[in-house]
Amino acid sequence: MEFNVLILGSNSALPAHGRHPSAQLINIHDQFYLMDCGEGTQMQLDRYDAKKSRIECVFISHLHGDHYFGLFGLLTTYNLMQRTQPLKVFGPLGLKKMIATVIHGTGNELKYELEIVELDFEDGAQLIFEDREARVVAFPLQHRIPTYGFIFEEKKVRVKLDGRLLDQHKVPEGMREDIRAGKDFTDENGKRYPASYFQLEQITPGRYAYCSDTRYFEKLADYVKGVDLFYHEATFLDSEKERAEKTLHATARQAAETAKNAEVGRLLLGHFSSRYKSLNDFSKEAKSVFPHTYLAVEGDVFSID
Amino acid sequence: MEFNVLILGSNSALPAHGRHPSAQLINIHDQFYLMDCGEGTQMQLDRYDAKKSRIECVFISHLHGDHYFGLFGLLTTYNLMQRTQPLKVFGPLGLKKMIATVIHGTGNELKYELEIVELDFEDGAQLIFEDREARVVAFPLQHRIPTYGFIFEEKKVRVKLDGRLLDQHKVPEGMREDIRAGKDFTDENGKRYPASYFQLEQITPGRYAYCSDTRYFEKLADYVKGVDLFYHEATFLDSEKERAEKTLHATARQAAETAKNAEVGRLLLGHFSSRYKSLNDFSKEAKSVFPHTYLAVEGDVFSID
Repeated sequence: MEFNVLILGSNSALPAHGRHPSAQLINIHDQFYLMDCGEGTQMQLDRYDAKKSRIECVFISHLHGDHYFGLFGLLTTYNLMQRTQPLKVFGPLGLKKMIATVIHGTGNELKYELEIVELDFEDGAQLIFEDREARVVAFPLQHRIPTYGFIFEEKKVRVKLDGRLLDQHKVPEGMREDIRAGKDFTDENGKRYPASYFQLEQITPGRYAYCSDTRYFEKLADYVKGVDLFYHEATFLDSEKERAEKTLHATARQAAETAKNAEVGRLLLGHFSSRYKSLNDFSKEAKSVFPHTYLAVEGDVFSID
Repeated sequence: MEFNVLILGSNSALPAHGRHPSAQLINIHDQFYLMDCGEGTQMQLDRYDAKKSRIECVFISHLHGDHYFGLFGLLTTYNLMQRTQPLKVFGPLGLKKMIATVIHGTGNELKYELEIVELDFEDGAQLIFEDREARVVAFPLQHRIPTYGFIFEEKKVRVKLDGRLLDQHKVPEGMREDIRAGKDFTDENGKRYPASYFQLEQITPGRYAYCSDTRYFEKLADYVKGVDLFYHEATFLDSEKERAEKTLHATARQAAETAKNAEVGRLLLGHFSSRYKSLNDFSKEAKSVFPHTYLAVEGDVFSID
């Protein structure tokens, strides 16, 4: 019953300093979602031993190349891997035409069902996706072209079990999910224990927000209010605030301001400009406003619990 | 006065086993040409310290994604690098529409001049490009969609100089090109030496042929007759000959047969299927027909002289 985020790409605009364009793999109880898909995402998935075949849905924040140029390769690779499982791709208006032009231009027809859902709204948050394990809500960001932020939310309450008691009563691995769900356990001597005996605490459903690219705007804090983990672009340091304003990007300090106003659990910074080789100052700058700040380092996994 | 080929990608269809989709950087006397541009080519150029800004021309063999999905990222990166030098891209019919759709879809207009030349002929070889240092000839291959092979040819005769004599007479580095071109040299004592005194031998212009993807066909040997270095796809081993025929690809043995019939200098095999982790058998199979066979290993540089 994991809920975590694997960082696949953390650089803005172009690959540099060993950092790749934007992409993240989100795992909610073994359902996998790809958030953005910059060039080379399929290689990054391989590098970190992520099973790309299990991705059920792809979410594209906006149609700047560093957020989706890897999509064409991934869709084609699925074809070559004989994928039969349908794939859903969410993204802004224009994505359909682009995929049609490029994929048809390759002379290939996809052998699996590809459903492209174009987002086209300018205000408010909308529930755009729901499966057994998760809900995904989208809301508009403020960038040079239509861009959406996303909140990934667990649907089920998770129950933590007491590992010491499980071992003591030799509860088989395969029965633990049942106990979590409230089923009693009978040990090898026939003695029966209520599920509550093993249950430590109930964990409220976790929420993860992804916001990139965007300029600073106050309403964003309302959209992401109280999420457990908050990924926010930090293309620049505050010393380049003017450049951030001009290009509709944000600084580390601004990301931290939003995190503070939204009272999130932890802040995760990414989408770093190539002008910065070292990222130490991003951490320092944001922490001075919001202490629970982390850098999106590629290969790192952030758990939501 | 170098003429060489840097291998950037050698795998077919999708990245696997640490191998990348097709791309090569061709250097003819410090003029740089990119041959195919699979996903991740810009990262591969960085990895091997190749100056991507100096690429003058890109040649796309055909519109299967593993040969051009990296082009969108490269064109966008040039914009971000403030490129002003014009760029020429040659490729089959359809490339123009694809670039227009994707690049415009990114919300960016390119700030440098991009000239796209679409190839659209079914027979014979055509001179498609010429600059100070090189000529490029294209000819049709036989694949599932329109595909072209290319010959890169030096225009100038190269002259090899006698390094021992140059050192003995203290000829400055900056004057060696003049001596190659036939200019006399006067030493520090005022003594004059004719250029021919230093000239060892004249090297006839080198030719490099790139052929991928293609099925085996006899006429190909005529197109590439006598080239110094011959890159030919070897997607499969001969044990998968039927699969090669079905998909209009070639085997290592077939590549070697063409190399032998064309009396080329050396054969370079690439575009290996992901089904093969080890490539030893490709080398063995081809060498049994054509001994001067090499494998296109990424990062390796092959000189033509």
